[in-house]
Amino acid sequence: MTEHLEANPAFVRLLEDTREASRTLRTQSSAVKDEVLTRLAGLLRERSGDIVEANSLDYERGEAGGIATGLLDRLRLTPERVEGLARAVEDIRGLSDPIGQVVRGHQLPNGLRVQQVRVPFGVVGAIYEARPNVTVDIAALCIKSGNAAVLRGGSLAESSNRVLVDIIGQALAGAGLPRSAVSTIDEFGREGATWLMRARGLIDVLIPRGSASLIQSVVTESQVPVIETGEGNVHIFVDQSADHTQAIDIVVNAKVQRPSVCNAVETVLVHHDEAPGLIPSLVDALKAQGVTVHGCEITQGLAEVEPASTDDWAREYLSLDVAMRVVDDVNDAIAHIQTYSTGHTESILTESVTRAEQFLREVDSAVVMVNTSTRFTDGGEFGFGAEVGISTQKLHARGPMGLPELTSTKWIVRGLGHTRS
Amino acid sequence: MTEHLEANPAFVRLLEDTREASRTLRTQSSAVKDEVLTRLAGLLRERSGDIVEANSLDYERGEAGGIATGLLDRLRLTPERVEGLARAVEDIRGLSDPIGQVVRGHQLPNGLRVQQVRVPFGVVGAIYEARPNVTVDIAALCIKSGNAAVLRGGSLAESSNRVLVDIIGQALAGAGLPRSAVSTIDEFGREGATWLMRARGLIDVLIPRGSASLIQSVVTESQVPVIETGEGNVHIFVDQSADHTQAIDIVVNAKVQRPSVCNAVETVLVHHDEAPGLIPSLVDALKAQGVTVHGCEITQGLAEVEPASTDDWAREYLSLDVAMRVVDDVNDAIAHIQTYSTGHTESILTESVTRAEQFLREVDSAVVMVNTSTRFTDGGEFGFGAEVGISTQKLHARGPMGLPELTSTKWIVRGLGHTRS
Repeated sequence: MTEHLEANPAFVRLLEDTREASRTLRTQSSAVKDEVLTRLAGLLRERSGDIVEANSLDYERGEAGGIATGLLDRLRLTPERVEGLARAVEDIRGLSDPIGQVVRGHQLPNGLRVQQVRVPFGVVGAIYEARPNVTVDIAALCIKSGNAAVLRGGSLAESSNRVLVDIIGQALAGAGLPRSAVSTIDEFGREGATWLMRARGLIDVLIPRGSASLIQSVVTESQVPVIETGEGNVHIFVDQSADHTQAIDIVVNAKVQRPSVCNAVETVLVHHDEAPGLIPSLVDALKAQGVTVHGCEITQGLAEVEPASTDDWAREYLSLDVAMRVVDDVNDAIAHIQTYSTGHTESILTESVTRAEQFLREVDSAVVMVNTSTRFTDGGEFGFGAEVGISTQKLHARGPMGLPELTSTKWIVRGLGHTRS
Repeated sequence: MTEHLEANPAFVRLLEDTREASRTLRTQSSAVKDEVLTRLAGLLRERSGDIVEANSLDYERGEAGGIATGLLDRLRLTPERVEGLARAVEDIRGLSDPIGQVVRGHQLPNGLRVQQVRVPFGVVGAIYEARPNVTVDIAALCIKSGNAAVLRGGSLAESSNRVLVDIIGQALAGAGLPRSAVSTIDEFGREGATWLMRARGLIDVLIPRGSASLIQSVVTESQVPVIETGEGNVHIFVDQSADHTQAIDIVVNAKVQRPSVCNAVETVLVHHDEAPGLIPSLVDALKAQGVTVHGCEITQGLAEVEPASTDDWAREYLSLDVAMRVVDDVNDAIAHIQTYSTGHTESILTESVTRAEQFLREVDSAVVMVNTSTRFTDGGEFGFGAEVGISTQKLHARGPMGLPELTSTKWIVRGLGHTRS
């Protein structure tokens, strides 16, 4: 049952329309859902001019408002980026449909047949910031998984999102489905986001994507179940027996290949016995790639680095900075990780099977690795196709999220007149 | 990382101790966890006298305070009930350990080996009301699944719970595990419950069990992820082709076998064409078992029943009352369910494969049945052993919850020096 929501009546109507549309969407065949995505990819290409034009309004307003260059870059849509969006939609179309998949099934002693099958959530809410590509990504993922979507994309990208949601509506209508299956609440401003977080019974799950502060505020305020996609204070521990060349390759790759993302390494822990032999060349290799190393006292004695404070152990730099600390052994490394990790990804570099297994067992993070760059924590790399986000919570989804994580399940029970005694 | 929690320092210390203990618990072998449960069952029998004595203090206080008879009955522990608790612990010990189970696994094209394995949540919080048996149930389920637990059992059962938590601590200590792995926060009163709901980073999941109002307040206030165990406004739809004898058996069973529980039927929908032939005998059969039928206008014309208002469609009676409504067809039945159901369990009684499949597909509830009494929605009946509760939310767990629903997963990645290009 829908619960009472104190909000603008137009807002409630919009959510009720989307809920109604979700009932149509959730029983569609894969063929119909794929047709929507084919049309969507086509329309994105066809109306690329409209999209880029609307986006330049947002961009100019953002520029005039003096917003940061990084944000501006993520806001911008060029004809090439629109083509990229169309291809992403086609990739999502190519994934296998999770709906109807049987997760578990058995026959009870009394003959009842019981099956747990994947079903859509219903309505997925998403709150994100000034990234119009997320509008298309989330809409396409929701359509593929039979979910309706309510999007709150941030005022900075309002014009772009309006055109994109219109195009998505066109694609839905073209395949005979209700336009209201994908809605935007941008017109309701900040209040709309607050109402969305209270819309129990109208929204089944809420996914915040964006800055740590955005995610924090959704997680603490929402009354609707949330999937938290989180920060990555990511660690690599170089153990006693690690191969030095391999260790340097992996650490440099994990830091430098794309420093601004959540799976980039932020702290390197080095076993005490390896420190003198490894740290000078590791620091050199990092510096050669423009990385600033913030080292503990022992590190400072072995190479020219910035001094690290305990604040550095807790920081997610998201930049060409890395913290480095010498630890006694694997237990000390695990204790450090336990204290400072955000539970995203940690990797051990070692030749010891015993210590690898200990690390895998004792480190309680979404992804735990052996002899691997942390940059592999990624839905695309894991073979999930599109990127829904990386969950750092333990409920429902943990780690890279694929289409199955956008579904719930239901139990189907078939009897022959069974009553309980 | 632990987030800052504004609470009594003793409360924070208790939660930190439990968190610390959870790190020990989560890597224990099945053998050690089973040893705790063997000891716990033994100690419950050994200290049965202490338990019953402490419980009679709670009972007398409750009686003096004038609390309802139903509540008093659930509060009471007799030597027989303590023996029942010991047996339940032994049943849980007999279940298979979910921890370490591989959920998915594959090798990526680049040779990385990726596995998703079940791991404990860490610390499970539980808020419930005056039912000391829940203390033992939840503690045993958490121990079996490698979780620590923080329990808030309600002031009415405070003496009973104090003794039970002491016994659980004895069982843990006897197997060499920290007592603090199962803690009670009853001493902190109502404030303790509020702090628990804000203890992000210290509690991984919160499970409220009890009245609808308790669950509602936890769901809306908690900043920790919640698994909602919910109300059941449960429906049976008797379709056109249903066998009348079977239909009467199932409806009577679903209402009468145990009317006070969430899987008991609350509204019976009858196909228009079957109404004249079925309703008189169905109403007679229900009345013979002491059931009061609240019927729609058509029902009123066919049998002597109380008149139903639309309020009756929305009510979870939890008593020997049932609502009855005549509907046009399966579409009308599904529309009624869509409007009034709480998404717990609905059953169709029919001989038509087409309509059975339509009902299974279109009704969006945790459990959807064909020709089966709704009383089978139950962890025990589903073969899950112990009862964790029945989830009516769509995130993480839906329907009867077994041990796997008390776990999270983590991804294990094994490489050979892999870096991302």
